[in-house]
Amino acid sequence: MIAVEEAVARIVAALKPLESERIPLESAAGRVLAADAHAKADQPSFAVSVMDGYAVRSADRGARRVIGSAPAGHPFAGALGPGDAVRLFTGSVVPDGADAVLAQEDARRDGDHVHFTEIPSPGKFIRPRGLDFQAGSLLVAQGRCLTPRDLALLAAGDLPEVSVRRKPVIAFAATGDELSRPGQPRKPGGIVASSVYGLDSMIRQWGCAPKDLGILPDRPEAIAALAKVECDLLVTMGGASVGEHDLVQAALGPQGFALDFWKIAMRPGKPLIFGHLGATPLLGLPGNPVSSMVCALLFLRPAVSAMLGLSSRTLPLRKARLRGSLAANDGRQDYLRAACEERDGDLWARPFAAQDSSMLKIFAQADALIVRRPHAPLLEEGAAVEILPLE
Amino acid sequence: MIAVEEAVARIVAALKPLESERIPLESAAGRVLAADAHAKADQPSFAVSVMDGYAVRSADRGARRVIGSAPAGHPFAGALGPGDAVRLFTGSVVPDGADAVLAQEDARRDGDHVHFTEIPSPGKFIRPRGLDFQAGSLLVAQGRCLTPRDLALLAAGDLPEVSVRRKPVIAFAATGDELSRPGQPRKPGGIVASSVYGLDSMIRQWGCAPKDLGILPDRPEAIAALAKVECDLLVTMGGASVGEHDLVQAALGPQGFALDFWKIAMRPGKPLIFGHLGATPLLGLPGNPVSSMVCALLFLRPAVSAMLGLSSRTLPLRKARLRGSLAANDGRQDYLRAACEERDGDLWARPFAAQDSSMLKIFAQADALIVRRPHAPLLEEGAAVEILPLE
Repeated sequence: MIAVEEAVARIVAALKPLESERIPLESAAGRVLAADAHAKADQPSFAVSVMDGYAVRSADRGARRVIGSAPAGHPFAGALGPGDAVRLFTGSVVPDGADAVLAQEDARRDGDHVHFTEIPSPGKFIRPRGLDFQAGSLLVAQGRCLTPRDLALLAAGDLPEVSVRRKPVIAFAATGDELSRPGQPRKPGGIVASSVYGLDSMIRQWGCAPKDLGILPDRPEAIAALAKVECDLLVTMGGASVGEHDLVQAALGPQGFALDFWKIAMRPGKPLIFGHLGATPLLGLPGNPVSSMVCALLFLRPAVSAMLGLSSRTLPLRKARLRGSLAANDGRQDYLRAACEERDGDLWARPFAAQDSSMLKIFAQADALIVRRPHAPLLEEGAAVEILPLE
Repeated sequence: MIAVEEAVARIVAALKPLESERIPLESAAGRVLAADAHAKADQPSFAVSVMDGYAVRSADRGARRVIGSAPAGHPFAGALGPGDAVRLFTGSVVPDGADAVLAQEDARRDGDHVHFTEIPSPGKFIRPRGLDFQAGSLLVAQGRCLTPRDLALLAAGDLPEVSVRRKPVIAFAATGDELSRPGQPRKPGGIVASSVYGLDSMIRQWGCAPKDLGILPDRPEAIAALAKVECDLLVTMGGASVGEHDLVQAALGPQGFALDFWKIAMRPGKPLIFGHLGATPLLGLPGNPVSSMVCALLFLRPAVSAMLGLSSRTLPLRKARLRGSLAANDGRQDYLRAACEERDGDLWARPFAAQDSSMLKIFAQADALIVRRPHAPLLEEGAAVEILPLE
């Protein structure tokens, strides 16, 4: 048995960022930038009025002669001479010769002339060219998963397309004669395949393309056929433990499966496999649905991050205080389903009383997993604990 | 001018949850459940072995006779009599007559017989029927945005379909003669429309269907045509402020636009409009990209939550400590772009030095918005602040 951290490190070390592709900006949210994105133009690309008012020369005094009007998108063609003013609006280009804007609240219009109650200072109500960023400057660094705000920034930088990592294709199959789909007749002694639904949507959420291979029976030839699947990573669920009906390793050995490791010192989820089937990395998750999804969070997600070249790959552990108490831990790393609440600025995590690895309902209700290191000592109410927040 | 909280309350009060639709479970992630989902079956639906081993009668002693084998998905047809054992595997149905499982590690097989080093206690290594949940029990309550874990739970409850809220169709248009798309030739004095890209992906992220109406020129007839758009909510960007070229209200008045309110005591984003264009709610966001997206977070998101019937509608404010200092605030509620870092279990928020509402780059880089209430006092380093985390 190896430690969780070593297993993650070995999986991540075995994977490389996928190739990049250029896509239109409008479909880039949630994709991972494959190359630094630099601005094509200054933002703003000219000095802009931030008020409705009048462009003036700050050195002038007294009433000004209004020589024109320049709404946003309709710049004034000429330049201001001494004593001139040009009517402007929020977003208007500040015309040549002007170095200040006076707000319309401080102006009194009188035919062709305008009087001000305020004396302008240079730069007043003007947003200088390039205030936000300048042409050539770095807008978003490679390795970032693009947010809606990033998309707006890249648009402002005049970038209609971006280079992102191709979506990893993650093929997955559940194995087990006992499995059927929800709503279908159950086999005798059968159960509904549930974790495939969780895994499919996690894979999408993490920016990958899922390929659902369905439910495979416990027959070597069915499992051996996985060797023909085209994908970037192959995931099996079930069949990874020690029993006689645990066929994944046995069936895939003749297909060229090279084992890297299996069995992790953790709970839930001990029987995890990682290796390569030909050139394709293969992650064998436990068949138990809770174990399967916890292991997907702990091992598949970092694998996906490595293939996407994500700059931040660590799982976001947070600190919390323990509600209740916890017995001393044995040699396996525990992930306890817990409900969280904020109180008085502190985050409190309460582990559910029963933690049987089959219990999906408390997994769905959990806000976080409390991480208990191997041989962690007994903890009392209020003790500091590490948690892995769930969405 | 009205307060942010009043504006949100008035928007939310004007909107009702949309009708529901039934969809397959596999496409339900991120959708909002429209009716409580109850289990169709017990989970597990029979007593299950949690180990590879042997089903036995706990009252028996000594060697047992192995009368059969029952892999997962292949239940034993008969029942155990005195002295009998049945070979089981993880996930196997526990046969009639058996009340305990002994692990194979503690068993020695000898032909048809098996000897144990352990004395079984009733229920040992058996997961009882209905441990996770029972048929008819509530699995997921209406109003919840479904997670991957929820989908697995609903599958285990034998629910191939769920009832969810229809996706709200959010139509949006940017207004302004000065606007063009990234990569297209700029107009003289023109700027790139950027917030539409942010808004489009926010709308998708929040579980809605965006309808991009493009960029509208500053002409009343172009804006008046919005009255013909079919959608659940109409969003305009720009044209909501006080200048002569602010046409939205003027152009839509003759189309039956009924104003609820406009102008919010906040920064960035004062010129916000809410009302109804015929039967369609209309939210007019400011034209400034940062203001526009901050207002989308503060006002459009709760509107969407109300249309989706989401059970948790409040924005998730968190507490943090201030890095740097902040001057006393005036009568407007401020939303300051800030970078956050965790240190020693505390979350620290550092506002960016320049907060000009045009600055998209620091908005993209921000981890949170620091919320400054109207007339908030001067704050020194380390003071407690409220933050609105950004994704």
